[in-house]
Amino acid sequence: MPARAPRRLHLNAFLHAPGHHDAAWRHPDSGGHRALDVDYHIDLARTAERGLFDAVFLADTLAVRGRPDATVAAGLEPLTLLTALATATEHIGLIATASTTFYEPYILARTLASLDHISHGRAGWNVAAGGDLAEAANFNLDEPIEHTVRYERAAEFLDVATQLWDSWADDAVVHDRRAGRYADPQRVREVAHTGLFFKVRGPLNVQRTPQGWPLLVHSASSAEGQEFAARYAEVVLTGQQNLGDAAAFALEVKSRAAAYGREADVPVIMPSIAPVIGSTETEARRLARELTELHLAEPGVNQLSNLLGIDVAGLDPERPIPAGLLPREEDLADHRFARSWPTTTTQLTDLAIRERLTVRQIVARLGGGRGHRTVVGTPEQIADSMQEWSQAGAADGFTIAPPILPSGLTTFVDQVVPLLQRRGLFRTEYDLGTLRERFGVERPEDHFPEPTPATPRRTARPPLARV
Amino acid sequence: MPARAPRRLHLNAFLHAPGHHDAAWRHPDSGGHRALDVDYHIDLARTAERGLFDAVFLADTLAVRGRPDATVAAGLEPLTLLTALATATEHIGLIATASTTFYEPYILARTLASLDHISHGRAGWNVAAGGDLAEAANFNLDEPIEHTVRYERAAEFLDVATQLWDSWADDAVVHDRRAGRYADPQRVREVAHTGLFFKVRGPLNVQRTPQGWPLLVHSASSAEGQEFAARYAEVVLTGQQNLGDAAAFALEVKSRAAAYGREADVPVIMPSIAPVIGSTETEARRLARELTELHLAEPGVNQLSNLLGIDVAGLDPERPIPAGLLPREEDLADHRFARSWPTTTTQLTDLAIRERLTVRQIVARLGGGRGHRTVVGTPEQIADSMQEWSQAGAADGFTIAPPILPSGLTTFVDQVVPLLQRRGLFRTEYDLGTLRERFGVERPEDHFPEPTPATPRRTARPPLARV
Repeated sequence: MPARAPRRLHLNAFLHAPGHHDAAWRHPDSGGHRALDVDYHIDLARTAERGLFDAVFLADTLAVRGRPDATVAAGLEPLTLLTALATATEHIGLIATASTTFYEPYILARTLASLDHISHGRAGWNVAAGGDLAEAANFNLDEPIEHTVRYERAAEFLDVATQLWDSWADDAVVHDRRAGRYADPQRVREVAHTGLFFKVRGPLNVQRTPQGWPLLVHSASSAEGQEFAARYAEVVLTGQQNLGDAAAFALEVKSRAAAYGREADVPVIMPSIAPVIGSTETEARRLARELTELHLAEPGVNQLSNLLGIDVAGLDPERPIPAGLLPREEDLADHRFARSWPTTTTQLTDLAIRERLTVRQIVARLGGGRGHRTVVGTPEQIADSMQEWSQAGAADGFTIAPPILPSGLTTFVDQVVPLLQRRGLFRTEYDLGTLRERFGVERPEDHFPEPTPATPRRTARPPLARV
Repeated sequence: MPARAPRRLHLNAFLHAPGHHDAAWRHPDSGGHRALDVDYHIDLARTAERGLFDAVFLADTLAVRGRPDATVAAGLEPLTLLTALATATEHIGLIATASTTFYEPYILARTLASLDHISHGRAGWNVAAGGDLAEAANFNLDEPIEHTVRYERAAEFLDVATQLWDSWADDAVVHDRRAGRYADPQRVREVAHTGLFFKVRGPLNVQRTPQGWPLLVHSASSAEGQEFAARYAEVVLTGQQNLGDAAAFALEVKSRAAAYGREADVPVIMPSIAPVIGSTETEARRLARELTELHLAEPGVNQLSNLLGIDVAGLDPERPIPAGLLPREEDLADHRFARSWPTTTTQLTDLAIRERLTVRQIVARLGGGRGHRTVVGTPEQIADSMQEWSQAGAADGFTIAPPILPSGLTTFVDQVVPLLQRRGLFRTEYDLGTLRERFGVERPEDHFPEPTPATPRRTARPPLARV
């Protein structure tokens, strides 16, 4: 009996103008100086499309990211940029991060619906419930909103957004010129949502989109994030550093999703990987070393100090952080930065304790791929690692976060993708269809009854995923 | 001595998928059925660019527009759509309407800055201070916000947005790879704005744009709108129905602008015109008649009833509205619709009284060009009217609102533009440069001091236009 065909991977290209290593912009291969040039981003998206990637993905922060002297701290807004990419590409998915903490649901639901129409069903939304002090201070607040409250708001936001996307039936638009009937008013409904955070009447002023809703993505790591992902997400982006943690995470999220009554194998789990690729191991290591040498020590130390809430600058860089200085679990709630980013702090603390890394080593890891798992090696070694994770149930696909762009993406497309294809792990051409279809995710129903003459004028939609 | 060369006109193509006549979508020439198809809009923008228009313009409402059975009541979001158009065109300006009542300044300033980068300096913003009940109800409110309060918010919003656009100096980005210096931190500053409506720390997470700020546009008609336009707008869109009113308006706005210390001839005044073009007068009249016959009487009557706050349906359609029924000036403040749209109500009341129009005639005017001045005639007659208005000081240019799209725009470009060019009233090719340069409007300074070693770390910017 022939061996079972391996499961095909999904690939998501995480674009970040200079590349994901903190020092990438200093490297001569980096296009960071073209961060504001839309043609640069179009080239990146077309490279990913040439590599048959499922989607490109953009992260987001509603504030300047880091110190403007030390890093490319600003750039183009993701939804705007992805719309420009939509018209310059044909197949690739377009996943935007957008914050439920600071947007209004009517505005964001509308923008995402427009992107889904413009891209003919290629829009995805990474539902971001973040909001640290730097972001809060740009939105009339003096303090960040509590982590748990942000997740409550995210859940209600998603409920409102999906109701808005369902406020026009798929068949609402009749466009009967002769009878003078543009849409069937019984197939357009108000939302009439009143909740803790939002009061929205609707309907949305965009007709239902090719996908019904954009593909729902969540970058989950914290406990609330995992629960949110299990309940709502169709694709989960995550950042475990080792196979054991990643496999446990995937199992946990999928079993929680099953407990919510969702179908098997949902959501699709896509850990991130920052591949440092060389044609030989030696060459790959040289590239990694170049990046470390370009890495600015001072901003790295500041970043670590901020994340941990202790002054790392005063410590011996060649020794591990004394355990007594590390934040304890019970302190995290009181710590401003931890309150915003508890997972990062916890992961860093684990890293510091478990692996007994020196300060210099932790800073290098932090800079190495902005928190993504760095794999240094030949194309074969990168493909091996991906295959291993996939076979162990730790990944349904990967979010590729190249340390340097565009070179890291081009190399991946030219050298790793063909290996994955040869091993039967990756598609060799695009199928037609929407981004949801590519991920094997159902198109949500509009929850309007079958049209009959007796259809009631306003039909309610059940609230989202109240299982 | 030769006659002084005539002043060149500016032309703005007001896109609205089916065309501006309420019945346009029922006409066989209308592309209203392609409202969600980005390629349709790209074709429109390219037609306008072929006609050397200064810009395309999109209006906006943050709610379903009218009854979905009677009209194309929804469509693509303007900022998203214009971003898609940016990558498909090269020269034409892209003016988006966006509400200061319902957006947050950080989000909107960022999106507009991104559009300005992506379009290489072609972004314009129609600063909209609207917000009727239909919009308010989608943004957590049970009642619309008062007209005057909305304008106070708009002024503060503009102050915050312009501070954010100025938060990176033009020369802030150094991108010194060797020294590891991406930007000069002394050339990036916080905004630290605290006002009545907003508290925003900044800086913006988009670097300064080609135009510094997008071209600032305002659709002004109410008293507050005129004052706002005189103070801040670089281009004013307006909708007077006759030459006398338009000339008075232009004079008034420009003299108020001068009183604010602004340069002569600012802002650029662009009344709207809905040209119904035929190769003969008879043909033009036939097209106008076709549209009137397709116009749905019932929605028109409802619209008029809502605008005036009286039940027009009960009146004899062939007679004028009895003067006693029309709203008086002092009633307008209490009238919900009037509170949102005082100008439209006032203009309609004037129309009803001055011209003694019958109910049917007013409804036809309302539908004829969504409030724009309708001119029915040959290309020569359209050009004559534009020339007359220009020479009388009533217009520096025109916002062309074709009753049917795409045909009305194509006809204008093919038949009216060449006449205007022959008369020396319109450009025969695009100059290089930004949208601001095309309108002869200054690029705002970033208000950073000349860089010296002694530059203070944070430099303040004077508040906007406090003259």
